Amino acid sequence: MNERVLTGDRITGKLHLGHYAGSLKKRIELQHQYECFVLLADVQALTTHYEKPEVVRDNLRHVAMDYLACGIDPERSTLFIQSMIPEIAELTVYFSMFVTVNSLRHNPTIKSEAAERGYNEMYYGFLGYPVSQAADIAICKSSLIPVGEDQLPHIEQTRKIIRRFHQLYAPVFPEPQALVSDIPRLTGLDGSAKMSKSLGNAILLDSTRDEVNDKIQRAKTDPARIQKHDPGHPDICTIYSYHQAFNPGQTNEIHAGCTEGKIGCKDCKLTIAGRINELLEPMRERRETVGRNPKRVDEILMAGTERARQTAKETMGEVREAMSIDYFG
Amino acid sequence: MNERVLTGDRITGKLHLGHYAGSLKKRIELQHQYECFVLLADVQALTTHYEKPEVVRDNLRHVAMDYLACGIDPERSTLFIQSMIPEIAELTVYFSMFVTVNSLRHNPTIKSEAAERGYNEMYYGFLGYPVSQAADIAICKSSLIPVGEDQLPHIEQTRKIIRRFHQLYAPVFPEPQALVSDIPRLTGLDGSAKMSKSLGNAILLDSTRDEVNDKIQRAKTDPARIQKHDPGHPDICTIYSYHQAFNPGQTNEIHAGCTEGKIGCKDCKLTIAGRINELLEPMRERRETVGRNPKRVDEILMAGTERARQTAKETMGEVREAMSIDYFG
Ligand code: SF4
Ligand code: SF4
Repeated sequence: MNERVLTGDRITGKLHLGHYAGSLKKRIELQHQYECFVLLADVQALTTHYEKPEVVRDNLRHVAMDYLACGIDPERSTLFIQSMIPEIAELTVYFSMFVTVNSLRHNPTIKSEAAERGYNEMYYGFLGYPVSQAADIAICKSSLIPVGEDQLPHIEQTRKIIRRFHQLYAPVFPEPQALVSDIPRLTGLDGSAKMSKSLGNAILLDSTRDEVNDKIQRAKTDPARIQKHDPGHPDICTIYSYHQAFNPGQTNEIHAGCTEGKIGCKDCKLTIAGRINELLEPMRERRETVGRNPKRVDEILMAGTERARQTAKETMGEVREAMSIDYFG
Repeated sequence: MNERVLTGDRITGKLHLGHYAGSLKKRIELQHQYECFVLLADVQALTTHYEKPEVVRDNLRHVAMDYLACGIDPERSTLFIQSMIPEIAELTVYFSMFVTVNSLRHNPTIKSEAAERGYNEMYYGFLGYPVSQAADIAICKSSLIPVGEDQLPHIEQTRKIIRRFHQLYAPVFPEPQALVSDIPRLTGLDGSAKMSKSLGNAILLDSTRDEVNDKIQRAKTDPARIQKHDPGHPDICTIYSYHQAFNPGQTNEIHAGCTEGKIGCKDCKLTIAGRINELLEPMRERRETVGRNPKRVDEILMAGTERARQTAKETMGEVREAMSIDYFG
């Protein structure tokens, strides 16, 4: 119970089923075992969205509401806003002093993300994002970081930074461990590798029943199936991947039915739409309950941020002492 | 009187005559015309001294005392400690988002300083020092920055960063102007181009009369002069450059006397040692007065830092509003 977990999201849009399957579901479990901090990473979002900060602003409360709706309990998890913890920026500055530019340039995640975004030019803040991520982790003394495989280089860089800090000054932070999830990325409705709001192929967590039904009915399936008796290939079908994620009890049955041409895509879709709606239904209820008091989300964010800030201040006090720059005792 | 001036020093050692001639003298004048902020740049010092932060710590109060001794008036000038203004780190993070790595790599001052320090590897924090300098300037809304020629690229980069911020969001900062001084660098006692504490060729501002006399007597002069009647070359003589800096009324006379072999180096040195001691005498007195109350320096630093922090907080409030990330109004 002593270990602290840090999770969070870049605030660039509402959350969708991909977030749920990939991380939120796990977080809801973790909050019963650990002390959980959930970072609303607005500063990190601005690193790529500095030209449209209104996107970040507009989505902050949406994301917070998504968290609450899906079952993150503000009594168990500390929800906090990155930009309101100046200590993160301070710690980033101290960490920056002993991180080489080359180690950042060679970070494979930075490289591939820069390529993905089509950057001709590398921005200083973007290049340094593993350093500020190390500061996010260190400032709240988190020891367990749930991540996907692709984020492992960042965690490794964080561990290196923390070890170097301890070597230069004094031990202040736990050395964080990655809690790697083996959950595959959720496919987009259009069959592309990743569900993403900006690609328009996502089912948002705040979807209505009709929206879910409608989106699922229009989702891409195995193109080889024209008629019900055509043998299908569930392993290349988006809908089948949703069954794997949200309807694991029926996957064998559906796999066989599809391969043998015994179930039609329409029925198969109705089944998964029903399952997804079953999953979203309690979220809709929580959303409505929280929504009845419009100030509630703000209160939760302010209280969580205040709690995280206290932790951050304490950590920075120890950092200053370790670095012997606590001039006035 | 509305313009605000920012000056300051990296806290890496006690101040010496080179600092006095190059900047402190000017600062003492400026504080009568402008609102002056004086930055004790400990974070910037740590960028190059992160392996020995105790150097920074040990010199902080020395430098503050040097300021007070040489006539910086805490009623007119706000002395403040960089590491105690987290808003500078925050603003650095926001500025970092739209500054390209290449623009920093090509900054001539960064290039030459990295070469000077013999860096094989560029550190992320060191590379970004023009960004944090821009944040120093912007956070206190300074409009006038007294600098030497070599610092002009930094001021230009600051102006660019501020213009870009205004273009992206809203006008918040004045566009700072460099106040370029044409005072040449003070030569070291050993004749090298720069007086520097680490080169051991400096007269510290806290020197006693005897230390000044002794150091001046051992300073390098024109090696061509063995005897008094040997004609000298004052333009290559360290001592003559000190006459130019601290005894301008007598330069013609000394130039002629030296060239014509009419004054001896010993006398010439006694004269300048006398002038330097005259300059340092009121500093010694102020140092003694302040030193009588050992808490006085700390009080001044804390009060100045508190004042600067207020300004910094107000500026960050405007920055957040401009970027529309002031979530709770
Ligand atoms: S039956 Fe289901 S699994 Fe098979 S192709 Fe159609 S939607 Fe996909
Ligand atoms: S007389 Fe003075 S100026 Fe001339 S060489 Fe000697 S010390 Fe230098």
